[in-house]
Amino acid sequence: MQQTLRLIIDCPDQIGLVATVSQFLATHQANIIEANHHTDLQTGHFFMRHEIRADSLTLSEQDFERAFTPIAAKYHMNWRITASARKAKVALLASHESHCLVDVLHRWHSGELDCDIACIIANHPQMKQFADWYGVPFHFVEFKADNKPQAFNQIAQLINEYQSDLTVLARFMQILPDSLCQQLAGRAINIHHSFLPSFAGARPYQQAYERGVKLIGATCHYVTSDLDEGPIIEQEVVRISHSDSAADMVRKGKDCEKTALARGIRYHLEDRVIIHGNKTVVFA
Amino acid sequence: MQQTLRLIIDCPDQIGLVATVSQFLATHQANIIEANHHTDLQTGHFFMRHEIRADSLTLSEQDFERAFTPIAAKYHMNWRITASARKAKVALLASHESHCLVDVLHRWHSGELDCDIACIIANHPQMKQFADWYGVPFHFVEFKADNKPQAFNQIAQLINEYQSDLTVLARFMQILPDSLCQQLAGRAINIHHSFLPSFAGARPYQQAYERGVKLIGATCHYVTSDLDEGPIIEQEVVRISHSDSAADMVRKGKDCEKTALARGIRYHLEDRVIIHGNKTVVFA
Amino acid sequence: MQQTLRLIIDCPDQIGLVATVSQFLATHQANIIEANHHTDLQTGHFFMRHEIRADSLTLSEQDFERAFTPIAAKYHMNWRITASARKAKVALLASHESHCLVDVLHRWHSGELDCDIACIIANHPQMKQFADWYGVPFHFVEFKADNKPQAFNQIAQLINEYQSDLTVLARFMQILPDSLCQQLAGRAINIHHSFLPSFAGARPYQQAYERGVKLIGATCHYVTSDLDEGPIIEQEVVRISHSDSAADMVRKGKDCEKTALARGIRYHLEDRVIIHGNKTVVFA
Amino acid sequence: MQQTLRLIIDCPDQIGLVATVSQFLATHQANIIEANHHTDLQTGHFFMRHEIRADSLTLSEQDFERAFTPIAAKYHMNWRITASARKAKVALLASHESHCLVDVLHRWHSGELDCDIACIIANHPQMKQFADWYGVPFHFVEFKADNKPQAFNQIAQLINEYQSDLTVLARFMQILPDSLCQQLAGRAINIHHSFLPSFAGARPYQQAYERGVKLIGATCHYVTSDLDEGPIIEQEVVRISHSDSAADMVRKGKDCEKTALARGIRYHLEDRVIIHGNKTVVFA
Repeated sequence: MQQTLRLIIDCPDQIGLVATVSQFLATHQANIIEANHHTDLQTGHFFMRHEIRADSLTLSEQDFERAFTPIAAKYHMNWRITASARKAKVALLASHESHCLVDVLHRWHSGELDCDIACIIANHPQMKQFADWYGVPFHFVEFKADNKPQAFNQIAQLINEYQSDLTVLARFMQILPDSLCQQLAGRAINIHHSFLPSFAGARPYQQAYERGVKLIGATCHYVTSDLDEGPIIEQEVVRISHSDSAADMVRKGKDCEKTALARGIRYHLEDRVIIHGNKTVVFA
Repeated sequence: MQQTLRLIIDCPDQIGLVATVSQFLATHQANIIEANHHTDLQTGHFFMRHEIRADSLTLSEQDFERAFTPIAAKYHMNWRITASARKAKVALLASHESHCLVDVLHRWHSGELDCDIACIIANHPQMKQFADWYGVPFHFVEFKADNKPQAFNQIAQLINEYQSDLTVLARFMQILPDSLCQQLAGRAINIHHSFLPSFAGARPYQQAYERGVKLIGATCHYVTSDLDEGPIIEQEVVRISHSDSAADMVRKGKDCEKTALARGIRYHLEDRVIIHGNKTVVFA
Repeated sequence: MQQTLRLIIDCPDQIGLVATVSQFLATHQANIIEANHHTDLQTGHFFMRHEIRADSLTLSEQDFERAFTPIAAKYHMNWRITASARKAKVALLASHESHCLVDVLHRWHSGELDCDIACIIANHPQMKQFADWYGVPFHFVEFKADNKPQAFNQIAQLINEYQSDLTVLARFMQILPDSLCQQLAGRAINIHHSFLPSFAGARPYQQAYERGVKLIGATCHYVTSDLDEGPIIEQEVVRISHSDSAADMVRKGKDCEKTALARGIRYHLEDRVIIHGNKTVVFA
Repeated sequence: MQQTLRLIIDCPDQIGLVATVSQFLATHQANIIEANHHTDLQTGHFFMRHEIRADSLTLSEQDFERAFTPIAAKYHMNWRITASARKAKVALLASHESHCLVDVLHRWHSGELDCDIACIIANHPQMKQFADWYGVPFHFVEFKADNKPQAFNQIAQLINEYQSDLTVLARFMQILPDSLCQQLAGRAINIHHSFLPSFAGARPYQQAYERGVKLIGATCHYVTSDLDEGPIIEQEVVRISHSDSAADMVRKGKDCEKTALARGIRYHLEDRVIIHGNKTVVFA
């Protein structure tokens, strides 16, 4: 697979910005295979993503960083350059439902998700079988009524030990404490089994059943201290009817969850998401 | 067009129910062109709709009612029989947005919606042009800060005068008073410009924009005293992205509104909807 | 899980038919949890499916068959009664793509698909790992330029040996010979990676890319001698754009394939599909 | 409404291209409100669209053209600059079905489609009522078995007389002759009532009904001499089932037709479509 570099920028919109960045890239012979721009006209903020053939650049990644820094400073940019060659390490958190976990694992195993799965952490021991099948380290962390802080400390420690770049809550049914949310800000993705902001909180399919909606969905979002309120990356819906029981909704919703989560993870891994306030720009 | 009768039943589920109804229909030579059944397993309630060729029955509609009444009593049925030949009279309420109004009018004019449009009532006088084009009586009812009760009285009176069977709020931006909601219970349909229960209340597209959702929608529901909380008949969604402004969402949402409203009205006119508690069974 | 019986009927439409069947069921105390009817007005053919609590019937399945036979004869019915307790044996055929295979296996393993997986047969040996993970017998059948008849004989023999009720071609990339198609008529399901009838035949995603369509899809259908022309059970689509390469389409299409195949298999296993000519009635 | 200029470019991909264009725009103080890029990696072709606030430029549109011409020549660009202030003149062609015609008219009347409707030409006189309602010139052109060349000459003449920039076939059921297709190349849009390439040609809903597909659709495409084979701009689909008759499909399909056509026209009017071979790049 061809390796690429991704240059991600956001900053106040200014005339000359694109010209400067493009000139910089052209000077160093960047072969651009994908370029995306977005101006938020309401806030006057600008977003930009370039994907560049790694072997086309006439300077190293380090030299790129050095050379680009003054430009970034001039335009007050938030920016980063990432290399597809440096695979993200992903920690997967799961509870007793396996569909999202197995879906992510198979997409990774078949090469669709370009990352390393560092470890699987679950509060249900039967998830070990999937970790074993895919040859991934597994850690069972027990959650009891009176040990939650310790359990979360254990999780935080594992994430650190594995130097995980991204934590994915693949239907992990425990609410992360504030401190962990903040530690993982912008680096933890959750899948909520409703079309947020509808049916936040517990038992969303039962809520949907009781309200009598005609479509249900799933929401992939970044984890924040405000439960189910983080920046949304992707959503998916499916049509239902009166003939669907709450159990039918669970079954149909699972396909939404898998799809929305898989897309959200891929967008993140390919540096297609820029968080801005409580919203995202997704160059899908 | 072939005329039909529609027999709509809901009652506690019981063994022998379908056999009895089917036997009754067969005895009277009913040629059934569509039959739908639904059992709500959670509440043990049963729902049934038959559509019958009107000319196949060996007894009149009145005789049908008389003959069926003891059966209905025995099984504790809510039931009705309606004739497609007796067209519903529909009153349309509108404000300054014309897309839903014109969409309903054209579907009626082209024969898709089988009803009579009794009148158009609007609190914006420019809606008169569409009423004139389609040859429908128009009534302008002014809403000012201090005349709302009188204005709604006027609307209630018009609905009565026109003997309207169904009132459609085609983006009518005034909140109906409780008394009118109760008077029109099960006979008034609203289109809300969000995917309820998300973004109930005012300015849903702006709310959606601020929350950063990735799909927006519209909800067609029966009007009840609890604003935006009535039984949902139909919902529609469309995908959006960061590149859509709130104005883009308004434009994209309009297509959802038109589609969801048109389907909801058609289901109601064809007696395909059974309200049960705060939910609907829709034999679409 | 509650066990059910499913009574599936199709026959020429006649007055009294439903009454007779309903009366029969009521007489034997059948507790009906789902009932579906469909009349094809163009051909005058009638379709009916009842799902009945197995423990509610006052006669055995064998007695049911005996008692119902004269009714079926009178109305010229095609009919069958099946028991959810008797799980279908499914043979899975695969080639080198694993996404559909693994998806079906996980849905079976998690209980969503209520069947037994009898065996996996593949013409690529690396599929064995998935068979091993899920503890399913695996058979590698090599396909070479000059051994296709023998290879298919081997497959036919395996299907017989395992007494497979349903054969699923989970992206099996070999064209079944006529004789095998006929032997498995109505008992073999394929997933084609296009929205049929568009892009039948080889390399559908490449065809879609070249035609410049804006949506791609997948089609789950019964296998017949006419390649890609069998009765369609389910289809799924996803939006694409000019920015999607043929490889992107392959990735996006896989999710359609998995969803459409899983739904198609479930409908078949739950006896929700009635084949009529080259079309299907699906009581979803 | 804020006026904009749109700079549309396609050319062989080259390093320095974006830098040169961006530098040119920055030099002339262009305030870019939307920028889109696409590189077709298979053909090495590059596509670019800029939307610029018209009042931000320090040079006139004519001076822009003069100044940009040498750059365009150097990079072998196909290019154009268009002004939102100069509204396109649109000729609408219709037959006996009014849903697309009325939908386009209302979107234009309500300001969603930013164009002038030059005239309506129809081979069914009853379309005149809609022209009259919207105050648009109407021309009835009769089509008989033996006058087609003359009828098309008349249409060609009307298009010329009205100096129409875009011709929209809003369910116009006559096949345009080659000469007219060529004369209107890239300036005539058709809506076909199927999900192309499925069911090209006549009676697509009947074809769909007979094939038993589970989704139907509509395709908005540029008119070319190869009937139903022109570059696709937009497609839309809707789910159907065995319970939908061919007439139901017609009704459901109409909503797809209206939506796909409206989007296609808007994309064209806003210069969001670049035709490349038999495909389109649509910067939606």
